[in-house]
Amino acid sequence: MTRIPFDEMKATIKMAFTLAGMQEDKAEICARTHAESSMDGIYSHGLNRVERFVDFISKGWVDVDASPSLDLNLGAMEVYNGNLGPGITNAIFAMDRATEIAAKNGLGLVSLNNTTHWMRGGAYGWQAAEKGFIGICWTNTESCMPPWGATSSGIGNNPFIMAVPRKEGHMVLDMAMSQYSYGKLEVTRLANKKLPYPGGFDQEGNLTDDPAAIEQTRRILPMGYWKGSGFAIMLDIISSLLSGGLTTAGIDKKGLGSCGSCCQVFIAIDPLKINTQEMIDQALNATIDQLRSTVPVTEDGKILYPGERSLSTRAENMALGIPVDDGVWNKVKALAGLIC
Amino acid sequence: MTRIPFDEMKATIKMAFTLAGMQEDKAEICARTHAESSMDGIYSHGLNRVERFVDFISKGWVDVDASPSLDLNLGAMEVYNGNLGPGITNAIFAMDRATEIAAKNGLGLVSLNNTTHWMRGGAYGWQAAEKGFIGICWTNTESCMPPWGATSSGIGNNPFIMAVPRKEGHMVLDMAMSQYSYGKLEVTRLANKKLPYPGGFDQEGNLTDDPAAIEQTRRILPMGYWKGSGFAIMLDIISSLLSGGLTTAGIDKKGLGSCGSCCQVFIAIDPLKINTQEMIDQALNATIDQLRSTVPVTEDGKILYPGERSLSTRAENMALGIPVDDGVWNKVKALAGLIC
Repeated sequence: MTRIPFDEMKATIKMAFTLAGMQEDKAEICARTHAESSMDGIYSHGLNRVERFVDFISKGWVDVDASPSLDLNLGAMEVYNGNLGPGITNAIFAMDRATEIAAKNGLGLVSLNNTTHWMRGGAYGWQAAEKGFIGICWTNTESCMPPWGATSSGIGNNPFIMAVPRKEGHMVLDMAMSQYSYGKLEVTRLANKKLPYPGGFDQEGNLTDDPAAIEQTRRILPMGYWKGSGFAIMLDIISSLLSGGLTTAGIDKKGLGSCGSCCQVFIAIDPLKINTQEMIDQALNATIDQLRSTVPVTEDGKILYPGERSLSTRAENMALGIPVDDGVWNKVKALAGLIC
Repeated sequence: MTRIPFDEMKATIKMAFTLAGMQEDKAEICARTHAESSMDGIYSHGLNRVERFVDFISKGWVDVDASPSLDLNLGAMEVYNGNLGPGITNAIFAMDRATEIAAKNGLGLVSLNNTTHWMRGGAYGWQAAEKGFIGICWTNTESCMPPWGATSSGIGNNPFIMAVPRKEGHMVLDMAMSQYSYGKLEVTRLANKKLPYPGGFDQEGNLTDDPAAIEQTRRILPMGYWKGSGFAIMLDIISSLLSGGLTTAGIDKKGLGSCGSCCQVFIAIDPLKINTQEMIDQALNATIDQLRSTVPVTEDGKILYPGERSLSTRAENMALGIPVDDGVWNKVKALAGLIC
């Protein structure tokens, strides 16, 4: 396994994005977010997505020069048109605005219509937490999952993120609505393994932990069966109504690739408007203490809080370099003009 | 099976609450919410919870005369102390305030600390939708579920609700963090049946659909395995930080019964501040059309939107009466002084 230092990965991605037509400052921001995703162990949405993003630019599905324009200002809530600009810079802008509003009022909500794939949703949770804010955000997507009770696709795999700032390491939940991603199915199949728990249905309509069988039916499992299915529907419709933009059904019709012209919601809250720092520390520590005091399934098990695994992967990858697939890495280097 | 008309059920519960010391107006509101829960098919949190609520009053865990008092006003966000008043009247007050703020600003958030069990969380989603608002709310609870990777309890089964108003029937998602409730396990065991899908772990640590085995280990399954576990932790900590109140760990220490001194968050958004009614109808209809156009697993299957089953149960129970367990019904009649 090859490991690449963070700075080298970021610089290489930045060159690829610049060659694809991005202004230098935007390329720097997008490259940072992709590299940070890989650094945190979210390999599917970091380096691995660079090629597809460049492809989307060349198809005109992402306008590298566009940035959000204000549609509506309601005080604590602002609505922007993402103008099909890069999903990452649009989302960073939106969460930043939400925190600016929250810094004034305690609470800020910014929504985007007509934006594009934000890559790793958790990035904007970490962003809010890094600035000292509670962050909640989600996006809708094209349909790629059957609703509960159906065999064919009809709902989005809309990720939902919640983040809480904490000095010793933020708490960040970043979850898609499917139990596993298609990436996880593929990786598991290539390794000739089974999923740790059932992740979809086979041809006979039975739950299965065989990734190949699920890839065949494309009946991936919503997390919590009917619950994740209903949650996905609500996230979709509310992101659309909060931004005046397209629902999953509309994104499907639009046909601008994954998440083309999607809607996103960014909520920020300043916990220090309600609590002293001591109250916040106490609440967080009591919660983590309670988690640690449960009995682990395995003797050496440790009960983690949301985001804790990302933090330890980040530390490891910062120290040792970020593991990459050589094929993927070479493709990105080629896009950066470093190899042919 | 005995079926009781809605009005008779509501009147009987109201008498029970009045005899327990509640003022008439509050007893009317609480009785309505309990009866409506049963009418909508949420039997576990309707008539079935009356006896326990009366018990909580007699123990001093609920102060029937208390109502919320303002802790903090930040404009779009208000924080109240629930003063251990009835969870239902406190929650109705809070969602009402959230919609009033949203009617002015588009967005309103009201949080409660030190409140009590709100019974059916979905009630406050329906309430917001009935007034024409998008509603999002959640509560924290005492711990009753193992976090992912543990065999002993350490996190709350915190329900999360999202509601969208719709003329032909609101869309309402009301989901707890466990895959099944203990009530569902009991009902399934008593019927000598298996759960439709695995719902927890047995003594050997294997996933099982046998309700008795799960009741024994008390290792109920968070929805989506690690996802529901992480979600429960975030809902807990954020409800605490948004209200300055207790986390699950604090509720456990307090020992005022289920949800005693818990925290709740109520968000309301006015979709007409962002969309025309036509845009809203279009978004909702396109989404429901897309759901209906998927291929159902069974030939006569119908893909439902969140809340649709409640609506059809409501219609049936309004027409035929609400099914009750005779033992439960007689206990409530006794609490109402109607029988000995």
